[in-house]
Amino acid sequence: MSRTVAVVGGGVIGLAVAWRAARSGWAATVYDPRVGSGASWVAGGMLAPLSEGWPGEDDVLAVGAASLDRWPEFGTELERATGETLFTSQSSMTVALDAADASDLRTVAEWLDGRGYRLDLLTRAQIREAEPSLAPTVRLALLAAAEFAVDNRALVRGLRSAGEAAGVRFVAETVADVEALPADQVVIAAGTASTRLWPGLPVRPVKGEVLRLRHRPGVAPAPTRTIRASVHGRPVYLVPRGDGLVVGATQHESGDDTAVTVAGVRDLITDAQTLMPSIGEYELYETAAGLRPMSPDNLPILGRVSERVVVATGHGRNGILLTPLSADAVVAALSGTDLPEAAASRPDRFRHTSADAAVHANADAPVRK
Amino acid sequence: MSRTVAVVGGGVIGLAVAWRAARSGWAATVYDPRVGSGASWVAGGMLAPLSEGWPGEDDVLAVGAASLDRWPEFGTELERATGETLFTSQSSMTVALDAADASDLRTVAEWLDGRGYRLDLLTRAQIREAEPSLAPTVRLALLAAAEFAVDNRALVRGLRSAGEAAGVRFVAETVADVEALPADQVVIAAGTASTRLWPGLPVRPVKGEVLRLRHRPGVAPAPTRTIRASVHGRPVYLVPRGDGLVVGATQHESGDDTAVTVAGVRDLITDAQTLMPSIGEYELYETAAGLRPMSPDNLPILGRVSERVVVATGHGRNGILLTPLSADAVVAALSGTDLPEAAASRPDRFRHTSADAAVHANADAPVRK
Repeated sequence: MSRTVAVVGGGVIGLAVAWRAARSGWAATVYDPRVGSGASWVAGGMLAPLSEGWPGEDDVLAVGAASLDRWPEFGTELERATGETLFTSQSSMTVALDAADASDLRTVAEWLDGRGYRLDLLTRAQIREAEPSLAPTVRLALLAAAEFAVDNRALVRGLRSAGEAAGVRFVAETVADVEALPADQVVIAAGTASTRLWPGLPVRPVKGEVLRLRHRPGVAPAPTRTIRASVHGRPVYLVPRGDGLVVGATQHESGDDTAVTVAGVRDLITDAQTLMPSIGEYELYETAAGLRPMSPDNLPILGRVSERVVVATGHGRNGILLTPLSADAVVAALSGTDLPEAAASRPDRFRHTSADAAVHANADAPVRK
Repeated sequence: MSRTVAVVGGGVIGLAVAWRAARSGWAATVYDPRVGSGASWVAGGMLAPLSEGWPGEDDVLAVGAASLDRWPEFGTELERATGETLFTSQSSMTVALDAADASDLRTVAEWLDGRGYRLDLLTRAQIREAEPSLAPTVRLALLAAAEFAVDNRALVRGLRSAGEAAGVRFVAETVADVEALPADQVVIAAGTASTRLWPGLPVRPVKGEVLRLRHRPGVAPAPTRTIRASVHGRPVYLVPRGDGLVVGATQHESGDDTAVTVAGVRDLITDAQTLMPSIGEYELYETAAGLRPMSPDNLPILGRVSERVVVATGHGRNGILLTPLSADAVVAALSGTDLPEAAASRPDRFRHTSADAAVHANADAPVRK
């Protein structure tokens, strides 16, 4: 008889863990009162670990790149298994609007080059040629040829149906206590709610607001690549969808609700329009906010915290990107091994910080059965 | 046996007509595939015929004021009959942000004074005292003590339930041809769609976008009065609701769809924030667009167009305001009389214009049974 695993949280991380665990022989059950309704539903789905890199953040780059490497096979398999169309763009372009931005792009390109990633810097003329809808004020761009974008909602649907096909059970309940779960092993993949289930996990909610735009007849087409920039110090991105764009995202450190604010929408529109002047004529058909589970070092928290419990949270802004790696890391942890590419994400890295005292105290607590 | 009337259109006008007709002894049926889903649902619900007046537009003022006069009794009766809370504000304040605006306010106040309406001009200090959330740049205000605001959605619900209690029947169908309706009399109250049913009616759709905001804990309270202004030449208003504000409204003459545009939302937020700086921290929980049925002279089109057909459309931006008057005018027309206060709204006023040729041609057409 197969061993049982209870996965708490039906976002993309929990769904992917359950699917992959089921295929590895586990009898998996996902607990979530509303599968896929949290940050996974709000996300933009941009996979940009290279162009979001910054000198000194080598672990973040390595973990992100390791998950990006997995995406083509992971996504293609899921598309074949479920009929969903996941990939909505093949590449990303990070653009500079002023001299300081341009200098940053050159810094990133050089740093990436030293780590074996060759990204192209595009001139104004090349940018105009590649993405004519961008503003003429865009002066330099960093093109990442293999940074995909994924339709996050198709991913939610696909992971759920692939899981069901692999035998995953779904229980529409909120878990209050992991001890009460009838399973051999427990995976906590509950995003910002993970700290309720495992007190001391150093995860904090950072609210993000996102707009969804639809192309209207007669209006200039949207970019075909993910476009990233910083406008007045605020990060903004445009992620292609079949019928339009996702525009993200604000960052509110004090976020503990998912109310969309007037100021958030205003900033996103203003900044997006700075990148793409014709965006005003697009339909704004949805605004939404989600709570990102941020960790102190911008790396996820993946791995075993007790003999019975494995965690997969702290994905911050990169939950969609890190889905394949997280699933692999958790399935490895369930079977008692470690995934080397995820080593920097181990929960015990916080051992010497005060935030970690609680994690580690929990890990040393009497074994939970 | 009572005579039968078919009311085409279940917006506030059609619903009020049906309710009042039923109470006058008619067997009334409302035809609408989705009652209350059109412009009535999107509206702000501000009743401001005085402060929206302008020298020379005496008929518009008179018709609006005649309907405003009816609102206290009409609304109170509906509240008692249905339990809905309709009134969300008791007065309106039109504010000036620059010298030209201030001059306009004085012009309107003087003109109204000559017509027997005494409105107060408030100084900066008085404005600050009355509505502390307004921007310090507001320099003058015209206070209309009895210009109410009404919750348009409560009005839709209330009119529907009052109608049902009075015996109105509802048929969830789109009417393609008034001739096919099994009724003695027909009332066309289908907003912008009225021209499909009675070709030549001089009504055009003008799209309007509206935001709905909710107060959040810790944020400055919203104004208690309706606030109106013009910002960069664009009209903007803030209408109180129990839990926040309605912010309206854009005006797109080319509107024939109800897509909310990025630019529309941007303009409304920018202009509202100019009036009320703290608005950025409010929750933006809904954006919506409706199609206003505009007439050439900004007066509604109320009255008989054939022996069997009465129209009630062309309400433009004032559908909620003009609901009680429209119901009275139509019920009078059904019984073969005229409501004197609505005389300026008679359909035959377009007789000598080309737009009216079609109306009048229809009116003179062979009698439809």
